[in-house]
Amino acid sequence: MALGEFAFIAERLRPLAAGTKGALELQDDAALLEPPARAELVLTKDAMVAGVHFLPEDPPGEVAKKLLRVNLSDLAAMGATPLGYLLALVRSKETPDGWLADFCQGLAEDQAKFGIGLLGGDTVATPGPLALSLTAIGHVPKGQALLRSAARSGDDLWVSGTLGDAALGLKVLQGDLDVTAAARAYLIGRYRLPQPRLALGQALRGIAHAAIDVSDGLLADLGHILETSGVGAELRAEALPFSAAARDLPGAREAALAGGDDYELLFTAPPKRQVEINALSRQLDLPLTSIGEIHAGTGLCVLDAAGQEIQVERTGWQHF
Amino acid sequence: MALGEFAFIAERLRPLAAGTKGALELQDDAALLEPPARAELVLTKDAMVAGVHFLPEDPPGEVAKKLLRVNLSDLAAMGATPLGYLLALVRSKETPDGWLADFCQGLAEDQAKFGIGLLGGDTVATPGPLALSLTAIGHVPKGQALLRSAARSGDDLWVSGTLGDAALGLKVLQGDLDVTAAARAYLIGRYRLPQPRLALGQALRGIAHAAIDVSDGLLADLGHILETSGVGAELRAEALPFSAAARDLPGAREAALAGGDDYELLFTAPPKRQVEINALSRQLDLPLTSIGEIHAGTGLCVLDAAGQEIQVERTGWQHF
Repeated sequence: MALGEFAFIAERLRPLAAGTKGALELQDDAALLEPPARAELVLTKDAMVAGVHFLPEDPPGEVAKKLLRVNLSDLAAMGATPLGYLLALVRSKETPDGWLADFCQGLAEDQAKFGIGLLGGDTVATPGPLALSLTAIGHVPKGQALLRSAARSGDDLWVSGTLGDAALGLKVLQGDLDVTAAARAYLIGRYRLPQPRLALGQALRGIAHAAIDVSDGLLADLGHILETSGVGAELRAEALPFSAAARDLPGAREAALAGGDDYELLFTAPPKRQVEINALSRQLDLPLTSIGEIHAGTGLCVLDAAGQEIQVERTGWQHF
Repeated sequence: MALGEFAFIAERLRPLAAGTKGALELQDDAALLEPPARAELVLTKDAMVAGVHFLPEDPPGEVAKKLLRVNLSDLAAMGATPLGYLLALVRSKETPDGWLADFCQGLAEDQAKFGIGLLGGDTVATPGPLALSLTAIGHVPKGQALLRSAARSGDDLWVSGTLGDAALGLKVLQGDLDVTAAARAYLIGRYRLPQPRLALGQALRGIAHAAIDVSDGLLADLGHILETSGVGAELRAEALPFSAAARDLPGAREAALAGGDDYELLFTAPPKRQVEINALSRQLDLPLTSIGEIHAGTGLCVLDAAGQEIQVERTGWQHF
């Protein structure tokens, strides 16, 4: 039998708020949050729909973690430290209680991993598919947020981790790509469980100029930086970082350029910061790769190993 | 033709964020918000689904305003001043662009009315009905938020405005109640366009003990105060405030006791505050009516004019 709203809140959601200062045990109209002194708050909100952004048969705990992590990735891209989150659960009558229990268990595990708690939210019913909306709140020291619009001519263009894994993982899941069992597990894991680069984002404050997380695809997200900063860029395709699982797969370069969902950080920094960034890479045990340069003017040019321009489709992922 | 996500954000949503400091013209991963000094932030999130919380034929501008206002009402109940909001739009393919344009126009009008702006959000597609989730952010001076859990034995129980109007308005809309044209317009207006009692909530800081907004129904919401405060109450049914339109309608008392959606403030205050509260009522031009008392112990007793206990169903609205 489905739990009613109050019982669901009491049994499933209240435990997620138990340790959260200001959540008031989800028993009030709103949550209270005392911001750190001299901080700016960073607020982001992402929504996901069953059958659109995840598959009904995906493990519910991983859906929960992906929802939380794509929001944390937005905080990471601003250089923020997470404080907490609110959740709206638009629940389909067909969603089994067991699904929701596993979903909440996934949230509990990631709360512990990222040191945050549930602050509040809402649960409502829909005759349509399950939909989820999460608002994450973080903080940065005043004036130190990393912005998309801060790229400057002469900056190096950097990306964290490896690219294309998530898009290839989705292809594997859809049966469109045959790979070894180990590559299969790795690529699907990259698609289902992004790693928000929070430590990197925070460390890049004062080092990087512009930053964004790669969610729509490298070219689309780089396009956002170029547009808001009013600059252009050259991208070296042969410098793109690949995982061992992705490197030799058909379509790897297209996945790296146009596939979304990797949730790595793309950032720009002046060349004099190279030593610091390389040290940061070692310290965080996370590849940080220089893949191009920002220049004055406009436009994005992708070069091959011989320095010839490659024609690429720049279209990124559109959510509707 | 439906606007794509980026075009929709650029044409419809960006204008709503144009004057909002920290919204970064919706061109970044997240919004930045500098909280006022020595303030606590108040965060609330409510969701609405087409066909469940509003009717597909409801005017889209009024749906937008209701969504914003139910969240502002939560801020009012905490004594908070609104700062801004984030919106998740889970868009059905059947939602016409015109509907969304009118929806955004409604938001624009209420932004001006309440002095707030759009900070950020997300737009996604669903094969199901349109769903909307809004997160509102406000602030209160540190330690001064009104909480549900702060009612004390001996407090008077007060309610603002009039009760039952919204539930009767819904009945009128559903064709279950025949009323005059004037009463029809008034009651439907009360259902569709709640008035968040922001000025009252802010003025009650330091005067009221506990507060809540009447969204689930008077008895259910009073129940929340009693449970979280660990107290009981006596409620005088003959003292319930009615509008001229509602007073003589069949089912008015039940609507006032159990109907939701009035979004008036229910609050408790020590008897020595009566003079101040009556002065506040005149100043705000808003009825504030004493409808009962808080006592030690537990339980809620509803009395008729002769002081006899009335048996009532205490069940409030459950959202699923």
